[in-house]
Amino acid sequence: MPKISDQAKARRRAQIIADARRCFARYGYEGATLPQLEKATGLTRGGIFHYFEDKQALFVAAAAASAERLQQIWENAGLSGLLEALGAEDPAWIAVQLEASIRARTDRSLQRALQDHTEAQRAQAPQRLERLRPHVRDDIPVEQIAMFLTALVNGLALRRATGDALPDPATLNELITSAVGPRR
Amino acid sequence: MPKISDQAKARRRAQIIADARRCFARYGYEGATLPQLEKATGLTRGGIFHYFEDKQALFVAAAAASAERLQQIWENAGLSGLLEALGAEDPAWIAVQLEASIRARTDRSLQRALQDHTEAQRAQAPQRLERLRPHVRDDIPVEQIAMFLTALVNGLALRRATGDALPDPATLNELITSAVGPRR
Repeated sequence: MPKISDQAKARRRAQIIADARRCFARYGYEGATLPQLEKATGLTRGGIFHYFEDKQALFVAAAAASAERLQQIWENAGLSGLLEALGAEDPAWIAVQLEASIRARTDRSLQRALQDHTEAQRAQAPQRLERLRPHVRDDIPVEQIAMFLTALVNGLALRRATGDALPDPATLNELITSAVGPRR
Repeated sequence: MPKISDQAKARRRAQIIADARRCFARYGYEGATLPQLEKATGLTRGGIFHYFEDKQALFVAAAAASAERLQQIWENAGLSGLLEALGAEDPAWIAVQLEASIRARTDRSLQRALQDHTEAQRAQAPQRLERLRPHVRDDIPVEQIAMFLTALVNGLALRRATGDALPDPATLNELITSAVGPRR
């Protein structure tokens, strides 16, 4: 029954990611050691490395899973759903992801690994832009609007990570709609 | 002639900050060692510590000088001037400042030092909000608009730090004006 075995493997993989994510959030990317990751996942390093090549691969998989989840929420629940999800996200986990994306400037290996994951995301960008298009004004290229919204969401995420207050949801919604909503 | 001596001291202080800033940008906050800072400033550590208590104080002074400069540009040249200045800023220096603000989550001493500098900035916030008020819509509290704009600017800064493209200036200006400009 290879299908069940594959399912079990996928479940185990998802569980490792969830446990590792908490560990990275708590200790930081650099600070999370193999013994801590073993403790967090309840597996030996051999058990972990059966699923992920190394700590870096595990981190990138966790970051990719988060990005994918937020992307899905954005598509299914709109920008207000995404902002709500962002408000519910663990600030420590947001912080460690931002920290890693900045660290990648000077850490070539992490840079390559994150790039591969970004490339995979980027491959889906054209379809995503098409899905965004009907919800936004048509006098500005949708790519420009996507860049604007991504910058804004990342800036709000940074505020979460550093413990600063966010604008209240209704106001944020009004400002974003004024900026990018279809012209009346 | 104490006046000249004070001027000379202020010039020397500004020069140390400028040199240290390049050093932090190159090696990161953690990575910039005292020998590197000595080399970058052309001073002994004794010479540096005559002006700044320690490496952390030097970094915070450099970050404060940057924040003050950008704040001045925002007030004198408006948001488009600020965005232009952001586009001309060294991405490595932006990166190390974001890195430090995230690191402050878990580094209590850095947190306190950055907070003191933020408090000093914050003391001027009421006047700054008053100066922003005439330029933005009046149906939303100006504090909320300031939070929104700060998040957006930080998100754009993050894109600069990670090497991602920014929306083109005219588009950005149109989107921001639509979001927060006075209602017609």
